[in-house]
Amino acid sequence: MPQTLTLNQRVVLVSRPEGAPVPENFRLERVALPELADGQVLLKTLYLSLDPYMRGRMSDAPSYAAPVEIDEVMTGGAVSRVERSLNPKFQEGDLVVGATGWQSHCICDGRNLIPVPSGLPSPSMALGVLGMPGMTAYMGLMDIGQPKAGETLVVGAASGAVGSVVGQVAKLKGLRVVGVAGGADKCRYVVEELGFDACIDHKSPDFADELAQACFKGVDIYFENVGGKVFDGVLPLLNPRARIPLCGLIAQYNAQALPPGPDRLPLLQRTLLTKRVRIQGFIVFDDYGDRHPEFIKAMAPWVREGKVKFKEDVVEGLEQAPEAFIGLLEGRNFGKLVVKVAPDASI
Amino acid sequence: MPQTLTLNQRVVLVSRPEGAPVPENFRLERVALPELADGQVLLKTLYLSLDPYMRGRMSDAPSYAAPVEIDEVMTGGAVSRVERSLNPKFQEGDLVVGATGWQSHCICDGRNLIPVPSGLPSPSMALGVLGMPGMTAYMGLMDIGQPKAGETLVVGAASGAVGSVVGQVAKLKGLRVVGVAGGADKCRYVVEELGFDACIDHKSPDFADELAQACFKGVDIYFENVGGKVFDGVLPLLNPRARIPLCGLIAQYNAQALPPGPDRLPLLQRTLLTKRVRIQGFIVFDDYGDRHPEFIKAMAPWVREGKVKFKEDVVEGLEQAPEAFIGLLEGRNFGKLVVKVAPDASI
Repeated sequence: MPQTLTLNQRVVLVSRPEGAPVPENFRLERVALPELADGQVLLKTLYLSLDPYMRGRMSDAPSYAAPVEIDEVMTGGAVSRVERSLNPKFQEGDLVVGATGWQSHCICDGRNLIPVPSGLPSPSMALGVLGMPGMTAYMGLMDIGQPKAGETLVVGAASGAVGSVVGQVAKLKGLRVVGVAGGADKCRYVVEELGFDACIDHKSPDFADELAQACFKGVDIYFENVGGKVFDGVLPLLNPRARIPLCGLIAQYNAQALPPGPDRLPLLQRTLLTKRVRIQGFIVFDDYGDRHPEFIKAMAPWVREGKVKFKEDVVEGLEQAPEAFIGLLEGRNFGKLVVKVAPDASI
Repeated sequence: MPQTLTLNQRVVLVSRPEGAPVPENFRLERVALPELADGQVLLKTLYLSLDPYMRGRMSDAPSYAAPVEIDEVMTGGAVSRVERSLNPKFQEGDLVVGATGWQSHCICDGRNLIPVPSGLPSPSMALGVLGMPGMTAYMGLMDIGQPKAGETLVVGAASGAVGSVVGQVAKLKGLRVVGVAGGADKCRYVVEELGFDACIDHKSPDFADELAQACFKGVDIYFENVGGKVFDGVLPLLNPRARIPLCGLIAQYNAQALPPGPDRLPLLQRTLLTKRVRIQGFIVFDDYGDRHPEFIKAMAPWVREGKVKFKEDVVEGLEQAPEAFIGLLEGRNFGKLVVKVAPDASI
């Protein structure tokens, strides 16, 4: 008996951005999916995660990961429901997380699919606080940051997916936590809802001074997920033996050339030497993939007990993904950005 | 019975250098020493160590250590012989290492004096391969560098006190070792005498290309004790998960302003992120002081068995110290620079 043809809606890369991405870099298209072969599963995307690292995949500059090819589906993590399975490891209705891309459906062989933890308020949490951003926050803070009670931590994009988790875990560990975010609403949320000790608006004309005042005992850990002027503001505040986990540089992703001089590379080197600073870049699944169980064991109870709160910014419809992603790079989102791809996702 | 008055010859800081130090920044003077008080020892300096970090102490810019004050004796480590002792822990004739400064004698209370290990070809070795530079090389390589057999290491100032030890220990650990040094003589020595796999002359017009060819499998550890163009040459060669112990930046110590643009700070950040690099500044006695016995236990047998060779550049007479130090910052020395302060030092 012939199967019903499944139409897949997907977003492909049309051209590589010069500077900030524009809608014309993407194309929404519909294609028929082939029939399912033995060992394969058909996934229906419920939620797609939009994350800053995707900007890097749109470029073909040398990087840690291969770029998305032109006319290829945009890369991305998603929560999906198994619609059909010819793989004994999966059953219809299973919820899984995988790097299935910007599309409504995906046929895959079941490798690299992780079950969605049970008991979450929404399965989309597996893309945030209990997914890649949460694990980035947790591993970078704990392994490279080496937090000690009484120390001061600064984190940028403090209302975002990584920054919000970094700060809340650091508070649980007894640190003074200063966030940086864009705009009064985000700063208020970070202090009042997430419990940071302070949050500085990077749009303020006195940003550097305000940051220095909030960090009156200097900075012991700077969790770097932003770059740009937040890094510049923190640099002179670093205490001896400060640690800088470096997981992202969103402020610099759209840059097409290096900024004008003077060349501050020697200044950074000198600061690292005289303050004996450790700075370390990391890519969470590459560097800490084997520690996923440890992360879930620590984070899941905190989320369940409300000790780590998590805000989502949910956009409806795959066709909105390009515009939402462009806004993410400009800081227009408020909370972890996810796209609700299937209308019945939250059922 | 009144004691004989001891005259102390010493070099004091007269003025702070603007850029490279000049002889006029120093003054050689003679002063009478006070009488020895109870608990004190009178030391006679045999060998004074001259090291790049001293350039930092001549400036009053913020740093990890207080500057030398104007008219104060220049700071520095030295090997001394106990001439008289009113301290039960020391006997006449004992050889000790301490931060006693650029002077022929020193009266001190015996704190922070370390015995010179026995069986050395010259006691001055306690200022080099078995002293601060050797321990800097060893701890930075082992603790931050985390060397693994088969990896490639690059180190600058490869014929110098730190670089020569870094490279030889890395060879003992099974790495491919590429040195960088200034001039054909030093490069030949580094390969033929010290056993490095290659040594590139940083004065070559094709320095960057030659370095890249020598590091045909990329760079896993860059031991940074130089800065400047060696760092620039290594940056594009770094392999994923490379480690950069950072103990010195001699190429930049005389700089009075940042170099012109573009600003490469974002480039360095991006490299650290995409290559997941760890870079860490350290000051050996501050960060690893408690591991001194471990260092001696590892290094002393290597030195005794000739597995780690060590070249000294010995200058005669304290009055030569300023000129020799100026030359050190220009790379004019060949081997660890020490000043033989007492004419009978080697007896």
